[in-house]
Amino acid sequence: MKTYPAAIEELMLFLKQLPGVGKRGAERMVMDILDWDKSDIASFANAVLKIATDITFCPECGNCAEHGQLCSICSDPRRDNSTLCVVETIPQLLAVESGGSYRGKYLVLGGKLSPLDGENGENLNFDLLLKQSAKPELKEIILALSSDVEGRATMIYLTELLKDFSGALTRPAQGLPAGANLSFADSATVAAAFTGRTSF
Amino acid sequence: MKTYPAAIEELMLFLKQLPGVGKRGAERMVMDILDWDKSDIASFANAVLKIATDITFCPECGNCAEHGQLCSICSDPRRDNSTLCVVETIPQLLAVESGGSYRGKYLVLGGKLSPLDGENGENLNFDLLLKQSAKPELKEIILALSSDVEGRATMIYLTELLKDFSGALTRPAQGLPAGANLSFADSATVAAAFTGRTSF
Repeated sequence: MKTYPAAIEELMLFLKQLPGVGKRGAERMVMDILDWDKSDIASFANAVLKIATDITFCPECGNCAEHGQLCSICSDPRRDNSTLCVVETIPQLLAVESGGSYRGKYLVLGGKLSPLDGENGENLNFDLLLKQSAKPELKEIILALSSDVEGRATMIYLTELLKDFSGALTRPAQGLPAGANLSFADSATVAAAFTGRTSF
Repeated sequence: MKTYPAAIEELMLFLKQLPGVGKRGAERMVMDILDWDKSDIASFANAVLKIATDITFCPECGNCAEHGQLCSICSDPRRDNSTLCVVETIPQLLAVESGGSYRGKYLVLGGKLSPLDGENGENLNFDLLLKQSAKPELKEIILALSSDVEGRATMIYLTELLKDFSGALTRPAQGLPAGANLSFADSATVAAAFTGRTSF
């Protein structure tokens, strides 16, 4: 049986490693790329290569940064050093940034404890968190992890890990999303919203 | 609002151009790539670049080939020059090959007529098909296009285009798929299977 030329098979192997891409998806992608201009394909290759050459992780917080420097948040003197927000991933950091109200620093764990997936914490930035939590100017650590089972377990682990931290240990409010209609909210969210009700 | 470093934003732009990849998908892909070894990322970039440098289209049939040469099928002397199978895309060519029974040549149109999507035939290999159909050794042309509306319209157009072709103009049999249960077949397939019934 005939197959694709070696160059196409090789690219398909790489594309199949990407999240959400299967055999057929990788095939469709390569067929699409075949129709691109040669210069666009070369620019795409260069953009991939730049990830290896330009992007590093910030040594202070685990966010993505360039050429081994501090990330754009850690190097910003206007950010508040007294609060630290712990998130799982870099997209979650950007989600908190999109809220626009938080002006403190971050710590990107790089995931959450998930023993069933083989994540026992060796790859998570716990050491970095301990180092940051020891800074005397730090007054509050916000644990902004997912509220699924693994996220909650990780938060419980973190409260243990940070038991020597003298400042406040907080988490984002749980309740109804902005603009939500009560009749479409799930029962757990309604319960959390009523338990944590605030006065006007 | 903070965004990603320029290198990440640039790669996300390219990934978003791939079929089936949206903003979130591209973000997930880049975050996944960030966790790869630097050498793997460089190999991935090289694999993309090779598509631009190594892969060309076969001048005889429109299949993918390497370095401007004939494709592996057109350059195979054992293939039968008396039949030509017209398909829309390269994956469809491989699908016919996977059947294992066809030993003739191919012609890849590169799509089908679809005026609503702006495909009026300028980009399709009609010229190449006319050139192939004029070869004296050719006895049969099989139109193996999709049997959706655009595919059927294209086949009708091709029968007009090939009206000077003196050999047979055929298409693959329509009927029940191999191993199919009649009770799960759709009505159009059952109708086609009964209309085209064959004797033992």
